[in-house]
Amino acid sequence: MPYFTLDTSSLRHWLTEHADLASRLGGNPEDWMIREVSDGNLNTVFIVAGPDGQLCCKQALPHVRVAPEWPMPLQRALYEARYMRATADAVRPAAPELYFYDEEMFLLVMECLTPHEVLRSALIRDDAQPGFSASIGQYVARSVHATSWISRPFEVGSKLLEEFSGNTALTRITVDLILTDPFRPCSRNPEAEAALLSDVTALQDNKPLHRAVGVLQDRFLTARQALLHGDLHTGSIMLHRDDVRVIDGEFATMGPIGFDCGLYLGNLALHACAAPHKQDFIRTEIIAFWSSFTNEFRALLKTGGGDVWALSDETQREELLENFLTSILQDTAGFCGLEMIRRTIGFAQVADYTLCPTPENRTQARRKALQTGQRLILDASTVQNLSDVLALLTLV
Amino acid sequence: MPYFTLDTSSLRHWLTEHADLASRLGGNPEDWMIREVSDGNLNTVFIVAGPDGQLCCKQALPHVRVAPEWPMPLQRALYEARYMRATADAVRPAAPELYFYDEEMFLLVMECLTPHEVLRSALIRDDAQPGFSASIGQYVARSVHATSWISRPFEVGSKLLEEFSGNTALTRITVDLILTDPFRPCSRNPEAEAALLSDVTALQDNKPLHRAVGVLQDRFLTARQALLHGDLHTGSIMLHRDDVRVIDGEFATMGPIGFDCGLYLGNLALHACAAPHKQDFIRTEIIAFWSSFTNEFRALLKTGGGDVWALSDETQREELLENFLTSILQDTAGFCGLEMIRRTIGFAQVADYTLCPTPENRTQARRKALQTGQRLILDASTVQNLSDVLALLTLV
Ligand SMILES: Nc1ncnc2c1ncn2[C@@H]1O[C@H](COP(=O)(O)OP(=O)(O)OP(=O)(O)O)[C@@H](O)[C@H]1O
Ligand SMILES: Nc1ncnc2c1ncn2[C@@H]1O[C@H](COP(=O)(O)OP(=O)(O)OP(=O)(O)O)[C@@H](O)[C@H]1O
Repeated sequence: MPYFTLDTSSLRHWLTEHADLASRLGGNPEDWMIREVSDGNLNTVFIVAGPDGQLCCKQALPHVRVAPEWPMPLQRALYEARYMRATADAVRPAAPELYFYDEEMFLLVMECLTPHEVLRSALIRDDAQPGFSASIGQYVARSVHATSWISRPFEVGSKLLEEFSGNTALTRITVDLILTDPFRPCSRNPEAEAALLSDVTALQDNKPLHRAVGVLQDRFLTARQALLHGDLHTGSIMLHRDDVRVIDGEFATMGPIGFDCGLYLGNLALHACAAPHKQDFIRTEIIAFWSSFTNEFRALLKTGGGDVWALSDETQREELLENFLTSILQDTAGFCGLEMIRRTIGFAQVADYTLCPTPENRTQARRKALQTGQRLILDASTVQNLSDVLALLTLV
Repeated sequence: MPYFTLDTSSLRHWLTEHADLASRLGGNPEDWMIREVSDGNLNTVFIVAGPDGQLCCKQALPHVRVAPEWPMPLQRALYEARYMRATADAVRPAAPELYFYDEEMFLLVMECLTPHEVLRSALIRDDAQPGFSASIGQYVARSVHATSWISRPFEVGSKLLEEFSGNTALTRITVDLILTDPFRPCSRNPEAEAALLSDVTALQDNKPLHRAVGVLQDRFLTARQALLHGDLHTGSIMLHRDDVRVIDGEFATMGPIGFDCGLYLGNLALHACAAPHKQDFIRTEIIAFWSSFTNEFRALLKTGGGDVWALSDETQREELLENFLTSILQDTAGFCGLEMIRRTIGFAQVADYTLCPTPENRTQARRKALQTGQRLILDASTVQNLSDVLALLTLV
């Protein structure tokens, strides 16, 4: 079927023609409840409910959903499907199951997460059950372990490089919106609030900062360590009680492991800036993330199996791994700083700032995020352990 | 035409059916002189001479030429053709021109280099005109500049990752024969001469060495800086007087720039081990290589143009570039050490050792290569400038 943009009625029709999927819903097509729940920037998402079950249907649009004048290749849906397939076995059940991908409609049909809520909204409503970050740490460890040179014959990673290097449209978004635009005057940056203008100007004139961002640009584009989710913010996670799931892998790319970690921690840290009374809670989540990530990664890597470090015995692998974890943490600190800045003054800002009770509080919160972000970027290479990162986040 | 292995008579016939190529030769097909000149390990190479010109025809065999029981995918010829196409504009005239690639016959037809000689043979006959290494330094700078994230929008590198990541059969050779086998007992390693056995055992028991090799394995597989030749030894270079050409790019892969530099310097250094009276000559070539590489790279990068370092002005780019060059030199030192070791005790050894007048001299030369190689690998990360590398090579 050649591509067209689905609405509730054409989706109903499309589903009737896919018996496997229709049978998951049960009942008669006319009884299915279909509602659009798109709340991201890019794609259309429908939830379809039948008597026997529900489905989540996500279709790519030929443009950015919230900016129709900005064209965006449909192909991104293919990369999301590939990411789900490449990581499913390793991370199950921490991602929704992909039931079907339609190559012509650029449509993913997946397990409907219900009554799950997006983590960012849960955090804003102060309704996330503590400890969710341990699941995310485990998720990152498992997904990167399944796809890295350290743990697999290098041919596995080469195949992934072949499969994901074409995802340039979304990587271009990362390169521009995270790694470049916030640090220069750019029409894509929304106008900053007046009280923050001098902070933004200072940041955009900060030469040592640009130097450090250059190093992170290089890390992002050259350190092809493992398959990344590529957009692991609190809006890409859904949860219900202790059932935590990662969605929205369309930015998937081979890259530095610290990129996934850094984006996640950056969004937690932003939340702490916006809601200073929750600092202890966020601090505990950050610690839970890092300890779960490192413990899981250590346990998985014990078994070896990759070409890298193939000559080393278990004792030596442990030492190499500790160094590797330190370098991942340094990347994490840097990318965490980038995310804090771009989510504060870049194209795609976060709703967490709506928590600030007054405009003055909001300005303060944003200023704190900008300052913390800069410190993290500048000092990333000096970080030796998580306490150093917490100190940079002033969450010690 | 479905694949079959060409011989002189079927090649003559094949050429008559390719008018463009036949016209470069001129005259009548029956007058063409065709001779096989294969001297590498992998492929068949023919030189075809007609009254108006000559052609070099290189065909992949379904196995290693010198080890028919070792199967090898034909596809490697495609990667050599892609490498020649991807770098031709940047390096011209330092590589032979590719006239035609036959996807079904896995056959490259290229400019015939005549009366050129393979650099390794010229060195062994003491007949290479000094200064050739400056051309190689320039070649490496130009080829990696044309294909790196530092100098090009990242989409260029992504395309190359897509095109070259499938070259796993030859990368597997690199991973095994250079990065792993020499450091462990392995049936692919030829039996070492008796006088060298204890050296080999010590090397294969050297834990700190294995740790350092692990770091280089990681660099080779994760640091995707630019498109590499991948096998830049003195047998992949042909020259006549000051006309220096690089051939045989079938190992092409995205990787760390220091890998091309290190393999080249490793082969020069091996020559100095085998012919100690030529140490000054080799020292001068190494200096010429590095200064030409760095000068050319600096000049090319002045113009910018990539996503990496996009925020930096010229002054800052210069500083970032100097750090980058130091890190390339550290990789170079490490890969140089790996190459010296694998060419001395690994599967594919070098003819340079035939220069040693007595068996004792040869043992000494090999021992020196093993010791130097180990030192380079162990101390690579301490290197700050070329003098440090020359000191490790005991060529100060
Ligand atoms: N499997 C699912 N089950 C239930 N709801 C889902 C599921 N996947 C997505 N959603 C809902 O749809 C919304 C948008 O999904 P998603 O974040 O994948 O879209 P997107 O347009 O790619 O977003 P972004 O702009 O952040 O990339 C989610 O925030 C969530 O509310
Ligand atoms: N363009 C050329 N012009 C003239 N002679 C050439 C040319 N290309 C290759 N040769 C000759 O053919 C020989 C083998 O070529 P080449 O090194 O490309 O083959 P190979 O089998 O891939 O070698 P290796 O085992 O080193 O990979 C060269 O050493 C050289 O003598």
